[in-house]
Amino acid sequence: MVSQQMYALGSNRSCIRDLFEYGLQQAALIGAENVYDYSIGNPSVPAPEAVGAAFAATIAQKNTVAVHSYTSATGINAVREAVSSDLNARFGTSLQPEHLFFTCGAAPALIAVLRALAVENAEFVAIAPFFPEYRPFVEGTGSKFVLVEADTATFQISTTALEAAITPNTQAVMVNTPNNPSGVVYTRETLEELAALLGKKSAQYGHPIYIIADEPYRELVYDGVEVPFIPTIYKDTIVCYSYSKSLSLPGERIGYICIGADVADSAQVMAAVAGASRVSGHVCAPSLQQLVVAQCATVRPDLTIYDQNRQTLYTALTGYGYECVYPKGAFYMLVKAPEGSGAAFSKRAMGKNLLLVPGDDFGIPEYVRICTCVSPEMIQRSLPAFEALAKETV
Amino acid sequence: MVSQQMYALGSNRSCIRDLFEYGLQQAALIGAENVYDYSIGNPSVPAPEAVGAAFAATIAQKNTVAVHSYTSATGINAVREAVSSDLNARFGTSLQPEHLFFTCGAAPALIAVLRALAVENAEFVAIAPFFPEYRPFVEGTGSKFVLVEADTATFQISTTALEAAITPNTQAVMVNTPNNPSGVVYTRETLEELAALLGKKSAQYGHPIYIIADEPYRELVYDGVEVPFIPTIYKDTIVCYSYSKSLSLPGERIGYICIGADVADSAQVMAAVAGASRVSGHVCAPSLQQLVVAQCATVRPDLTIYDQNRQTLYTALTGYGYECVYPKGAFYMLVKAPEGSGAAFSKRAMGKNLLLVPGDDFGIPEYVRICTCVSPEMIQRSLPAFEALAKETV
Repeated sequence: MVSQQMYALGSNRSCIRDLFEYGLQQAALIGAENVYDYSIGNPSVPAPEAVGAAFAATIAQKNTVAVHSYTSATGINAVREAVSSDLNARFGTSLQPEHLFFTCGAAPALIAVLRALAVENAEFVAIAPFFPEYRPFVEGTGSKFVLVEADTATFQISTTALEAAITPNTQAVMVNTPNNPSGVVYTRETLEELAALLGKKSAQYGHPIYIIADEPYRELVYDGVEVPFIPTIYKDTIVCYSYSKSLSLPGERIGYICIGADVADSAQVMAAVAGASRVSGHVCAPSLQQLVVAQCATVRPDLTIYDQNRQTLYTALTGYGYECVYPKGAFYMLVKAPEGSGAAFSKRAMGKNLLLVPGDDFGIPEYVRICTCVSPEMIQRSLPAFEALAKETV
Repeated sequence: MVSQQMYALGSNRSCIRDLFEYGLQQAALIGAENVYDYSIGNPSVPAPEAVGAAFAATIAQKNTVAVHSYTSATGINAVREAVSSDLNARFGTSLQPEHLFFTCGAAPALIAVLRALAVENAEFVAIAPFFPEYRPFVEGTGSKFVLVEADTATFQISTTALEAAITPNTQAVMVNTPNNPSGVVYTRETLEELAALLGKKSAQYGHPIYIIADEPYRELVYDGVEVPFIPTIYKDTIVCYSYSKSLSLPGERIGYICIGADVADSAQVMAAVAGASRVSGHVCAPSLQQLVVAQCATVRPDLTIYDQNRQTLYTALTGYGYECVYPKGAFYMLVKAPEGSGAAFSKRAMGKNLLLVPGDDFGIPEYVRICTCVSPEMIQRSLPAFEALAKETV
């Protein structure tokens, strides 16, 4: 007498979580130093010092009632003011506080937007490789999840393949750059082609096709690569942001939705987002975390270790003969399975206590994903296992 | 091109929120000291000192990565251990950590349980007076919201009226004690009658009818009145708890779902709750808040001020001739509208900048709700307005 859909969603957990739990069990059995867990995107560098200072200062305030009170469902006005000002300064936008809606992280932000746009027969398009939770998030709204295959030559967007996937029922295209799992950053050229295509299709079908920009990795980028702010390229862009990765606060559940004044039907979309959040149990984003991120609106992460890890792993693994996608952003790297099957390679790697996520759920079954947000020491300890795996006959 | 259902939910806000916003606007116009806002259940007493100390100690920990990391979706094991131990010590239960699922407060807890139980044609029963968000929460799952009228003689549960509302499709009855908005605590006798009725109906229809116990006010009780722990009276009880009121942390979004081993199909219900949470955007409850409530598992609120407020208001208002329900718990009091319509009385009170929530949305249109979680000074300042209203001819 329980919902079979919810039961299935709760009992078939994500492959990432399963590997992560397996790693914890193995660590208890054979020692954490003998398990090389590359499964989960838990930031390994501490939150910037300014974040700790902001937490301490906020907790020390005399008026604790004000700190811990219910806030407006959209967020504290001063917090939205601080964050919109920072976005305007960086991207030349004209965002006002009322264009931001604070959430308990990117997951509820994405779901609120999807549910807000989930009219009858709605379709949402994701482009492989993609974050696997997109599928249950979309299907949970009763909408159709449409997948565009990966362009594994460049890991940019194939606008030809995307065009074929768009129908009159397409409400939005989900875009994630810097990308999880590829670490690829979509170029300005890619995004301009995407904007041109969606502009054409919106005109053809007589309604806006939105971009839902999932941007938790916006600030995680290397080699000075540009991460264009998509609303400045395509006006009908709704941004979902999280501080999980940029401020190393994944457990603290703080992020926002940004719907600028230029977005088609912006007021209606914002109202529908508020309604969708309400029936998902949103009351407000944690007030303490809101106050902290406002104080840290201009704080950027120190990427030194992630950058080093990326280079160390890329150099070592390509040296062993692996084919890897060199990441320009986020903290992931794709490795092509020598046997052609990421699942088989992941299983073989488990035999050496090396935990690599098979690409199946990301829409790229020939690859495994490696998280580079790990300790440099673990990388060094793990390299012989990678080397041995490369030498095995498959 | 947005979901009309979500748009309606987002644009027709709750009456409580509307009054609260009106109060903020009036305060800006005529001075906060001239507005008597009894609208919103924002605790007016600060969090207990132990809570502030726990926040400070957790923030000061050296390993900030561990503090702020993703936790298991169900919550940190040590946190669930601390809270289940406290429940066992108080109520003689045998709860284990795996019976608790931590959430971002009671609202997402209720929604996850409703969605988990939302089989086709499911019906959920609420008993007036009830928390108005129950209706959109239930209807948001696609289920039928069934309302049992209030027994305004006692504000206990009329089992006769409840029995008439139960059908073969009834999945659960939502029970809120101490009650918002009445402040009434259901007696052990009431709950035993309820248990007998649901036991009989479950047997008759061949499936369990659950109680969903919404318990944010469990620790807010006066005059030594007993608040029975419902799972010890009716085994098929799922508890939804929040620390918003008991630890004065409403903005911090921390609570839990408790599904003991005795609950029918407990493992399936817990899995479905996990699935429902997943597609509502739950990743984990805020990790810092989890760590704080674990350290405060045995901390109880200081109710001195709420108790004084309750007595001051009851004595003054009944002295002016109002008919009030004397609250034994929570921090609300019902006042019967002299003109018989809570909405008309609320409107009349607004003319004196006295903000009282009409009972319509709670299912008791002849009453208004007063929040007693306000400052004693505001109560004193507001009494002339109450007195003047009582003297007006209506």
